[in-house]
Amino acid sequence: MAASKKAKAGAKRAAATSSKAKKPVKSAGKSAAAAPAPADAHPVSPLAPAKYQQLRPIAGVRLGTGMAGIKYKNRTDLLTVVLAPKTQVAGVFTRSKTASAPVDWCRKSLRQGQARLLVVNSGNANAFTGAKGVEAVTQTAEAASARIDAPASEVFIASTGVIGEPLPYGKIINVLPEVISSAAPSMWMEAARAIMTTDTFPKLATQQAQIDNARVTINGIAKGSGMIAPDMATMLSFVFTDAAIPAPVLQALLEEGVRDSFNAITVDSDTSTSDTLLLFATGKGGQHDPVTKPNDRRLTDFREKLFAVLKDLALQVVRDGEGARKLIHVTVTGAETREAARRIALSIANSPLVKTAIAGEDANWGRVVMAVGKSGEAANRDRLSISFGPYRVAHLGARDSSYDEEKASAYMKRDVIEISADVGAGKAQATVHTCDFTDGYIRINGAYRS
Amino acid sequence: MAASKKAKAGAKRAAATSSKAKKPVKSAGKSAAAAPAPADAHPVSPLAPAKYQQLRPIAGVRLGTGMAGIKYKNRTDLLTVVLAPKTQVAGVFTRSKTASAPVDWCRKSLRQGQARLLVVNSGNANAFTGAKGVEAVTQTAEAASARIDAPASEVFIASTGVIGEPLPYGKIINVLPEVISSAAPSMWMEAARAIMTTDTFPKLATQQAQIDNARVTINGIAKGSGMIAPDMATMLSFVFTDAAIPAPVLQALLEEGVRDSFNAITVDSDTSTSDTLLLFATGKGGQHDPVTKPNDRRLTDFREKLFAVLKDLALQVVRDGEGARKLIHVTVTGAETREAARRIALSIANSPLVKTAIAGEDANWGRVVMAVGKSGEAANRDRLSISFGPYRVAHLGARDSSYDEEKASAYMKRDVIEISADVGAGKAQATVHTCDFTDGYIRINGAYRS
Repeated sequence: MAASKKAKAGAKRAAATSSKAKKPVKSAGKSAAAAPAPADAHPVSPLAPAKYQQLRPIAGVRLGTGMAGIKYKNRTDLLTVVLAPKTQVAGVFTRSKTASAPVDWCRKSLRQGQARLLVVNSGNANAFTGAKGVEAVTQTAEAASARIDAPASEVFIASTGVIGEPLPYGKIINVLPEVISSAAPSMWMEAARAIMTTDTFPKLATQQAQIDNARVTINGIAKGSGMIAPDMATMLSFVFTDAAIPAPVLQALLEEGVRDSFNAITVDSDTSTSDTLLLFATGKGGQHDPVTKPNDRRLTDFREKLFAVLKDLALQVVRDGEGARKLIHVTVTGAETREAARRIALSIANSPLVKTAIAGEDANWGRVVMAVGKSGEAANRDRLSISFGPYRVAHLGARDSSYDEEKASAYMKRDVIEISADVGAGKAQATVHTCDFTDGYIRINGAYRS
Repeated sequence: MAASKKAKAGAKRAAATSSKAKKPVKSAGKSAAAAPAPADAHPVSPLAPAKYQQLRPIAGVRLGTGMAGIKYKNRTDLLTVVLAPKTQVAGVFTRSKTASAPVDWCRKSLRQGQARLLVVNSGNANAFTGAKGVEAVTQTAEAASARIDAPASEVFIASTGVIGEPLPYGKIINVLPEVISSAAPSMWMEAARAIMTTDTFPKLATQQAQIDNARVTINGIAKGSGMIAPDMATMLSFVFTDAAIPAPVLQALLEEGVRDSFNAITVDSDTSTSDTLLLFATGKGGQHDPVTKPNDRRLTDFREKLFAVLKDLALQVVRDGEGARKLIHVTVTGAETREAARRIALSIANSPLVKTAIAGEDANWGRVVMAVGKSGEAANRDRLSISFGPYRVAHLGARDSSYDEEKASAYMKRDVIEISADVGAGKAQATVHTCDFTDGYIRINGAYRS
C-alpha cells in the first residue's frame, strides 16, 4: 500500500529516538484499525521533533478516529472526541471575513459554554460552500447529537482541507457511530494524525499542573502547516484538561495564552478561513475547590503550563511550515509600543526576501533593514542594530565594525536561527516565530489542489 | 567572456522579433564601448516583451554609461544623464523608514526643482551605510558638479543593489568624467541595461504627446525586479520629456500617475529602501506656451501619454518579477471604498498561496476567498463572486453552478491571468498587477548576496 509505505518513511526521522512513538497504538474500533498514515507524500520536516511526547489519558476524554474517505485514501480523516457531561469549553477563531461554516457554528455554540463532542475532519474545509456548508455542519451535529444523547449545540465541529468544495458530509455521518463507539482514552497519536493535511508530522504536547492539591493534565494536538498567520495561526488545535474550570475563566486564559503562541507565529502570512483553537475542561481530574476568576492565584501553575502547551504546539506548527528547513525566532526591541514591535517583527518574519535569504543560509541583514523600514512603524535608521544569534552584524545604522562574515555564515547553517533587531525608537519588544521560505513551499503549494 | 555569453543568451527571446534591438547601439565613449550585458545569470523572463520599443532622442538629454566595477564584472554599472540647464524635475520615493542615502539626497535636492545631471549605479544600493553613505553621495555629487559646472544640488543620485555594504564611490568618481563626456542622445538601451540588477531584460517605454501645436516626446527606463511593492514599487525609474513644464506641475502629474502604475504593482510585498522615480522636463522640444497648472486642459494628451509610459514601465517590472512566469491582473469590485478595494486586491496579489497556485496553473479560487477574508476589509462572504478571466468560478458565496473545471484549467495555462473578485460590500474598485511565485524566486533570492 503506497500510502502506508510513505507513512513509515515519513515517520522514520521523528521516531528515530522513540521506539514507542513508532509502535502503532492498538485501536479499539474497526474503522480506526489501520495504521495511522501522514497526509501527504511530502518528506517529513527536518525540524520535526526527534521524539514525540507521550500523552497520558485525561479523565472524561475519549478519542476515536476513522476513515470517512472524504478526500484521502488509506488514511484516517475523521476524529471524534467524546467529552464528559458538562465539559466546559473556550475557543478562539480566525478573524477572516470569509470564515468557514464550522467556524460560524462553533462561535455560536460557544455561547452556552458546554461541550459533549468534538468532530473534526481533514481533506475538506467546508469553507465558502454557501448554504450547503451550513447544511453539512447542521446535519453532522444533529446526527452526532442523537448518538451521544446531548443537544446539537454541544457538538463542536472543525474541518480542514480544500476550500470551496462541498463537504460530502454523508461520508462522515456514515462512520460516525462506529468512530464514536470506538473512542478510547489513549488515542492521542491517532487523533493528531487524523487531522493532518500537508503536515509532515503529528503535533502533540502535554504538561501537568497543580491546582490546590490536585494534579491535573493538559494535553493538546494541532495541525498546520501552510496558510498560517495570525490571527489565528493554528489552523486547528484542540487542548484538553481534566481540571474543573468554568468556561468564562477558560476563555480568558485562552485569549491571554494565544498572544505569545498561536498569534505569534507565521508561515506565509496567509490567514486561513478555518483557524480554530478549542480548549476543553472536563473537571474529572483530581478534585480542587472551584476556580471562578482567571486571575485566581491558584491558577498560576495551570496558566504557565497551559501557555507552555500552546507555545509548544504553535512552534511545532512552524517547524512543520510547508517546505521549512529552519525555525526562525524574530525578536524586535526598542519599539515605541508592544504592538509596533509585533508589527515590525511580523514584517521581518513575513518578508519573502528575508525568508529566502535564511533558506540560502545567507546572513543578509540588508533585507532585515528593508523589512524594518517597510513596516511603517517608527524606527530610527541611524540607531538600528541587527544580530543573527550572538553575532551583531549591524549597529548604529551601518555594518558593525566587528562584523565577522565567516562566523555569521557558520551560524546561518544551524536549524534554529535567531534574528534580533533593536529599532532605537522606544522600549517595547515582541517576539514572533516563523520558518524559512524554500522551493519546497512552492512545490507543495503549486500542486496542492489538483 | 562568460558574462557576455549569458548576455546574448538572455537577450535572445526578447530580441527574437527585433533585429534592431539585438544590434548593439554604437557608443560614443570608450568606457561605454563594451556590449551591454544583463545583470545576472538568470534566464530571461518568459514574459519579456517580444520586441523592445525604439526610443528617439530627447532634446536636452544625453546619456552615458560606463563600467565602474562596483560589483559586476564585464558589464556596465554606471549611468549618467546630462540634462539641459534649467531642466525641471519631480520625484516620488520609497516610504521606507530605512530609506537609502541617495533617496535622502534626492528628496532634499528636489526642493529647488532643477536638475543638470543624474548619476545611477547598480550593484550597491548605498542603503544602511550610515555616515559613509552620506559621504558617498556628497562626494559623488560634488565631483560631478565640478565636471558639469552646476551646483551639487542639481545632481540627482540613485543606487540599486546590495544593502548595507559601503559604496566604493571612488570607483564611480574615477570613471565619471569619461562617462559624462561620452554621453549621447541615443543611448536609451544602454542606459536601461546599465541600471539592471537581477532584471532579465531592459525596460524602456516611449510615447509622443501634443501640447498646443508642439509635439513632445516622453521616454522612460526602469529596473525591478524583486523587493517590489507599493509604495513605491519601481525600484528605479527615470522618465524624460522635452516638454516645458515647471517642477510643481510635473510633481502633481507624477503623483497622480503613480497611483495606477508603480503604486499598483507588487512582486513580493517587499518595499525597497531605494525606490526612486524621477521625471525630468528639459523644455527643449517643440515650443508651446507655458503651462502653469496640472489641470491645464492643454495637458490632457500629455497626461495620458505620461501615464501610459508609467504604466508600461510598471508592468514591465512585474513581467520581470524574480522568477515570474505569469503576469496577473487582480481587479476587485464591490468594495466599500477605493482604498478598501486596493487593499483587498493587494491581499490577493501578495498571497503566497494564490501566487503559487497560479504558478501551478491551478484555478484554486479557494485561496482567493482566503485572501479576500484575511484583508480585514468589509466583504460579504455570501455575495462574493470570483472569476478567472471570463470564467466565473464562484458566485454568491459558493462554487458557481456553471463552473467548468476544464475550461478554467485551460485558461490558467496562459501567460497573462486575470483574477476578478466582487466582494459585494459596495461600489468601489481597484486593480493591481503582480506575477506568480515560482521556485525561480526562491533560487534567485536564496543566493543573491553570497
